[in-house]
Amino acid sequence: MFALRIIKSTNNFVNSLPKTARKIHKHNVLYNNKPEDLLNLVIRGESLQFPYVWLRENCQCEHCYHTSAQSRILDWSKFDLNVKANEVSESENSVRIQWSDGHTSQYNFNWLKFRSFTPENQKKYTETIYKPKKETWHGKDFSNILYKRDYSDIVGSEEALYEWLHKLSVYGVALIKNTPSSETAVDGVVDRIGFTKRTHYGIKFVVQHVQNTSNVAYLSSTLQLHTDLPYYEYCPGTNLLHYLVQTVSEGGENLLSDCHYTANYMKQHHPEQYKLLTDVEVEWSDIGTEFGNDFFKLHRAPVICLDCHGEIERINFSIPQRGSHFPGPIELVKPWYEAHSLFWDLNHQFAAKFKAESGDILAFNNIRLLHGRSAYEDSSNNVRKIIGAYIDWDEIYSRLRCLKVKLKNEDGIC
Amino acid sequence: MFALRIIKSTNNFVNSLPKTARKIHKHNVLYNNKPEDLLNLVIRGESLQFPYVWLRENCQCEHCYHTSAQSRILDWSKFDLNVKANEVSESENSVRIQWSDGHTSQYNFNWLKFRSFTPENQKKYTETIYKPKKETWHGKDFSNILYKRDYSDIVGSEEALYEWLHKLSVYGVALIKNTPSSETAVDGVVDRIGFTKRTHYGIKFVVQHVQNTSNVAYLSSTLQLHTDLPYYEYCPGTNLLHYLVQTVSEGGENLLSDCHYTANYMKQHHPEQYKLLTDVEVEWSDIGTEFGNDFFKLHRAPVICLDCHGEIERINFSIPQRGSHFPGPIELVKPWYEAHSLFWDLNHQFAAKFKAESGDILAFNNIRLLHGRSAYEDSSNNVRKIIGAYIDWDEIYSRLRCLKVKLKNEDGIC
Repeated sequence: MFALRIIKSTNNFVNSLPKTARKIHKHNVLYNNKPEDLLNLVIRGESLQFPYVWLRENCQCEHCYHTSAQSRILDWSKFDLNVKANEVSESENSVRIQWSDGHTSQYNFNWLKFRSFTPENQKKYTETIYKPKKETWHGKDFSNILYKRDYSDIVGSEEALYEWLHKLSVYGVALIKNTPSSETAVDGVVDRIGFTKRTHYGIKFVVQHVQNTSNVAYLSSTLQLHTDLPYYEYCPGTNLLHYLVQTVSEGGENLLSDCHYTANYMKQHHPEQYKLLTDVEVEWSDIGTEFGNDFFKLHRAPVICLDCHGEIERINFSIPQRGSHFPGPIELVKPWYEAHSLFWDLNHQFAAKFKAESGDILAFNNIRLLHGRSAYEDSSNNVRKIIGAYIDWDEIYSRLRCLKVKLKNEDGIC
Repeated sequence: MFALRIIKSTNNFVNSLPKTARKIHKHNVLYNNKPEDLLNLVIRGESLQFPYVWLRENCQCEHCYHTSAQSRILDWSKFDLNVKANEVSESENSVRIQWSDGHTSQYNFNWLKFRSFTPENQKKYTETIYKPKKETWHGKDFSNILYKRDYSDIVGSEEALYEWLHKLSVYGVALIKNTPSSETAVDGVVDRIGFTKRTHYGIKFVVQHVQNTSNVAYLSSTLQLHTDLPYYEYCPGTNLLHYLVQTVSEGGENLLSDCHYTANYMKQHHPEQYKLLTDVEVEWSDIGTEFGNDFFKLHRAPVICLDCHGEIERINFSIPQRGSHFPGPIELVKPWYEAHSLFWDLNHQFAAKFKAESGDILAFNNIRLLHGRSAYEDSSNNVRKIIGAYIDWDEIYSRLRCLKVKLKNEDGIC
């Protein structure tokens, strides 16, 4: 039995657990199932266990589950946490349970297998459906990882859109070529995915040289490596930049750096500086007026934000948009600046350098990559102009999953 | 000197530090400033210290700081982390520093004091400018904490809007009365604050009974206590619900529960269950089609999400919109359901019950409160109808700060 195996080899078991379980274990509570809490099934030769409480709550009958809303409608106030199976009967493709609360449920084997609790099956589901696994890159490999598709493919083929979004999610960057020279062309891409994230800079935005600007991105001078809008708690997930007119002057070159690569490098080679950048909150800030509306955005977060598994969730970096308030103790100021400086140097060292062309839409993960641009000069017949739009990862992952279900015929997904 | 004091009384010092510094200390690195890294000033009788590296980076001259963009424009590639002050000279209201890199900076005393590093000054800034401190409440006190203003005040008076938004941020709920009976009336409130958060349910949304719905909120049956859209990584921050037509039938009563109160209660009285709800990720899910567009949203997060200070950042809770995949180890399933059940019970126990009226706009923090509604019945001349809109906290806090600067004449804020 599973419960016995835990008792016999606690250490190995604890090490093999997903991090959530290890964390709970660290707080001196080790949970294990009683045999009577679990249904044991052999599905196509694989021994699988399912907790009864979970099975009962996920009954798929029309009284417990609303088909068009694809939602549980069971009344929790009447739910029995200690519900028992009075009778279990298997047929070729499903199992039927008569419950102690009088209800009867039936579960298809494919549906169950897809939701199985083994770490292997959970990992497979996570990487095929939840979110594709990211792969980090060094700038020297940029030409190998940069996926390019024609605009006509992206707006005309679901297969092309799927591949392009998949590469964008894995590498954090992808390119669209031969975009029509129209201020609304980027909308065609946005509409295929979902909709833009609106910010105080608009539903979309135009990047060109403006003298008395509310944002340094609207200047033609060097734009140092940064993420956009770190002062947003809900920082825009992805940047779509349509190069309507690229500069023909010497400058205007793009720099792109994968901070997941940089952060991993720091964690390995400079653990103390890595820790300062993951632990010390600084204040990101944007104060001004746009379209006649004033804004005063502040958000406190470290440069490298980790999730509860210790994985990188988000990067914040911007010399101009870090506020002058340092919200931590004075003792951490100089060490933090040193760590920040190292992060800056490493990102420049690892960055890719290229120059987008007129007709390109450059898409990149704004909470993972740093982007920058060298200074350029407009002339009377060459005024650099970019149409920009943000899309959040909620919408991109949603579109990826919808396309996957449609194109790959994954079984028992929903 | 400050550095000496640290060495003499490390334990007291560590306990008095903001949590960020304690965390760094736990990893066996204790940082302290060298006397030569700090500028000592006495501003209006208060002894204050400022790190030179911070002062140099925050020089406010036109070469280092862009006035209209209110942004640092200093070139980091030329920045000297070990910059020294060659000469410091004080005048009545400012200090002038001649730097070792040849640059000269001048800092106004008010500007400096507002950015001082003492824990007291930092706390004051945090609570007056960054975010007002939240106050938790039990349902029995609901009538005392519920702030109400007339629609005409909210759209016509900045003072009224400021007070109303301030109460909304502190208590997570506030009410607008006597809203015009128009489907676009809520836009008047949204426009005063910023703009809505668009989701796959639209830029705004209509809540009324729909038979073959994509969402159980669009049914007239009981709506169990929940947060909206927990499957969004960027979950809508605030719900604005305009009761265009409230039901005259017996039902349709609102339930509202402050989960910060509930979570604090659990932390104190049921620490093991609290830990399960803060540590175990479950999967929030919404799959369907709306306006002809399919969506497949998934987001993994605990019920109670804590920030790096151990403070509650966000609550996720929805019986219908928790997916059937449980992404954690099987041993945690039953304990998690038990903790979830306790959270449900306590929220019902602590919830406020009232019934919004036609003409009300009920606003509540969607990542803090649970809301629910009892079943109701439409009749031919009384069809319940709500116009809903989401606004994110990024926009609400931004408007609050702008209004504060404008109305309260805070000195040296920006």
